[in-house]
Amino acid sequence: MFSDELLARFLDASSRGDVETVSVLMSRSTELLNQRGEQGWTALMLAARNGHFDVAKVLLSHGCDTSGTNRSGQTAADVAQFWGNLHIARLLASVPDPVPDLRRLLPDRAGEEPDTFFNREFLDRMSVKRSDSEWLDSKRASPDSVFLLFHKLNPLVSSGAGETRLCKLGAPGVQELLKNGDTVVVFLGVERQEKQEKEDNLVAWFALDTEDDPTEFLKTEDPGCFFLPGAMPGLLRLSDDDAGVVAQARSVLAWHSRYRFCPTCGSATKVEEAGYKRTCLRAGCRSLQGVHNTCYPRVDPVVIMLVLHPDGNQCLLGRKKTFPPGLFSCLAGFVEPGEALESAVRREVLEESGVQVGPVQYLSSQAWPMPSCLMIGCHCVALTTDVTADENEIEEARWFTRQQVIDALVKDKRAVFNMPPRQAIAHLLLKHWTGFNANL
Amino acid sequence: MFSDELLARFLDASSRGDVETVSVLMSRSTELLNQRGEQGWTALMLAARNGHFDVAKVLLSHGCDTSGTNRSGQTAADVAQFWGNLHIARLLASVPDPVPDLRRLLPDRAGEEPDTFFNREFLDRMSVKRSDSEWLDSKRASPDSVFLLFHKLNPLVSSGAGETRLCKLGAPGVQELLKNGDTVVVFLGVERQEKQEKEDNLVAWFALDTEDDPTEFLKTEDPGCFFLPGAMPGLLRLSDDDAGVVAQARSVLAWHSRYRFCPTCGSATKVEEAGYKRTCLRAGCRSLQGVHNTCYPRVDPVVIMLVLHPDGNQCLLGRKKTFPPGLFSCLAGFVEPGEALESAVRREVLEESGVQVGPVQYLSSQAWPMPSCLMIGCHCVALTTDVTADENEIEEARWFTRQQVIDALVKDKRAVFNMPPRQAIAHLLLKHWTGFNANL
Ligand SMILES: [Zn+2]
Ligand SMILES: [Zn+2]
Repeated sequence: MFSDELLARFLDASSRGDVETVSVLMSRSTELLNQRGEQGWTALMLAARNGHFDVAKVLLSHGCDTSGTNRSGQTAADVAQFWGNLHIARLLASVPDPVPDLRRLLPDRAGEEPDTFFNREFLDRMSVKRSDSEWLDSKRASPDSVFLLFHKLNPLVSSGAGETRLCKLGAPGVQELLKNGDTVVVFLGVERQEKQEKEDNLVAWFALDTEDDPTEFLKTEDPGCFFLPGAMPGLLRLSDDDAGVVAQARSVLAWHSRYRFCPTCGSATKVEEAGYKRTCLRAGCRSLQGVHNTCYPRVDPVVIMLVLHPDGNQCLLGRKKTFPPGLFSCLAGFVEPGEALESAVRREVLEESGVQVGPVQYLSSQAWPMPSCLMIGCHCVALTTDVTADENEIEEARWFTRQQVIDALVKDKRAVFNMPPRQAIAHLLLKHWTGFNANL
Repeated sequence: MFSDELLARFLDASSRGDVETVSVLMSRSTELLNQRGEQGWTALMLAARNGHFDVAKVLLSHGCDTSGTNRSGQTAADVAQFWGNLHIARLLASVPDPVPDLRRLLPDRAGEEPDTFFNREFLDRMSVKRSDSEWLDSKRASPDSVFLLFHKLNPLVSSGAGETRLCKLGAPGVQELLKNGDTVVVFLGVERQEKQEKEDNLVAWFALDTEDDPTEFLKTEDPGCFFLPGAMPGLLRLSDDDAGVVAQARSVLAWHSRYRFCPTCGSATKVEEAGYKRTCLRAGCRSLQGVHNTCYPRVDPVVIMLVLHPDGNQCLLGRKKTFPPGLFSCLAGFVEPGEALESAVRREVLEESGVQVGPVQYLSSQAWPMPSCLMIGCHCVALTTDVTADENEIEEARWFTRQQVIDALVKDKRAVFNMPPRQAIAHLLLKHWTGFNANL
């Protein structure tokens, strides 16, 4: 026989995943095995609820009953499935395994990192130099240094021979703007050197943004230069190297344009660390004690995911009302405070489409400077297939077959939708899933 | 023969990865193949520089020379290696391949998502309810609702039987605090239901923080309650379910404590959307036009990585001056604006230890509510092995063998360092690498 106290300890240990205590207590009384606690829950159900695979295995090795139900009518396998503990659901399923291994459906992640748009690292950020004001001053005055100019976050570019290139200004070209004490000059880094060179030879790059009309100023420059309007899709016209530099510059400049005041006390701030810090000017402000994120640029993590149908041959895409006609893309959303990536994927898909998600697999990430997002691209597998689009977020969401995605990729005349542009990580997620690796 | 213009186009196409143009131009003049442009760079070197695997393959299939060097004395393979394009470096290396496949050294990622501390989703956030003020009002008044109280971001807990549990207060218990109009009440979500229930039965959870001394208030509550001091390691004493709730609550409350003013204009703000939005009170503020991240809680992505030695049997760990004696952990750092995860891993490791990193592989993520970080855990493989610790960041960084890590994991008396606590993702990265999957 066993005491109530022993049963309570046994159920608690199962619930917590304490496999050692579970084993010890069973050695004292095997009758504990199928006993029920609150709401008719057994140790196995509690282990299934909380994802404790090792406990479930130990219980099963002692011949634990798997068919019993709790007061909600659920077996341990039902509980494991509901809570997304699929490894336990499979363990509990009868042999041969009737639950398909959904992870099998995820594409192979092996292989090389994709050379994703906005990710190219043309410059070495050399963050150690951000606090070296003497070095920075000399570089800001150097005739070799490169200055990128933005107007309301749109970069100054020139266009020709089918290419849109950043205009690289010299220090004299931005002299007038630098005289304005309010202009923030962000140090972007130095051009990478194939060989170790003397520090003095490093070519430094800077970025600055003006909100004033720079027409007067531009008269003195290349008349072919203009501010590239419309971040999307404007920035997608840049070369890979230029896009990488703009991803960094535009993100930091956007922060300066929106975070001029101390969020802790509302006072004005001053720029430090070559454009990577804003410090409150009010003596005694709490933000001046210790290190706080209020002083540093913000990066917003976003999950973007291709949801695979459990049949392995379809994927879920949606369209926002603001999308161009025919365009469908992956679902996406901001990671919330206190949330893991995988949790964010499951929550966003459920909120936007009503579909429940099981396994999640990271593929690749991408900087997305509108204004400063970190896109985290994943594949995941659906546990349910009924789609109910959240009308606030998206206009339509539905399943597309692999063939339909390939048709869209190669722009076949049979294509039933338009792909997101090749520069977007959604494109990569779709292409990777199809296994279509030709040069598209 | 070919014109200078043709060579320029050929080199440019190789540089851009335009495999079609490269093929077309070669069909017009095979003499282009080994020609040099600026600084003695060939098409193959440019493709190797920019990671264009398909171009390199096409050039090699035409018998392109791989032994020539540019003016810096680098072969195409050297260029590929320097720029981290390891697939091309391997392609260019002679057979049998002398460059080890570093990806082989990365641990197997297959398998289940770990049940990481702070990640447990005990509540359903039900974000759709954040704008339903009628429903929120009824839940705030409901006797079934649960209120978590924080004092300067430390949660109210009780301690007993070796466990530290959150104190779940009812609406009457926080009545006095709610009367203060400045108190922010954050809606956390509802308890998950095993079965679909009527909405009215959902148990809602809220969190609130007070900066005032709550001693008076606490007299009326359980005398065993106290505010858990010291987020680290204090919060690590919580159960997995409680930790998941605190990760969410503390992150959002920390945001309210630091972001009371509009960063765009410095004005006061009001709380909306059940604690997930702060809106500027100044009519005409730019933050009121369109959607801006200034109004929403901040989440800071952090990369944390276990760097593996190219010999496959050692890993790089470091210690900060603030660590307890003997503790070594993974290197880590904030993702910068305009930076992909993989780039952030390479930059941080180089900055902190002087070690160059090749392949990077994501393993798992973790919410870390100090104050609101998203930890992104990776394994990666070093290309170089000399360690030079950045003394501003870390006190010491060095290589440890697999056996030394296992000794530390099992707390063997031979252990030469202390592991990070099991609740930290650094622990998981280390444990996963050792392949040591016993219940530690
Ligand atoms: Zn301040
Ligand atoms: Zn404002």
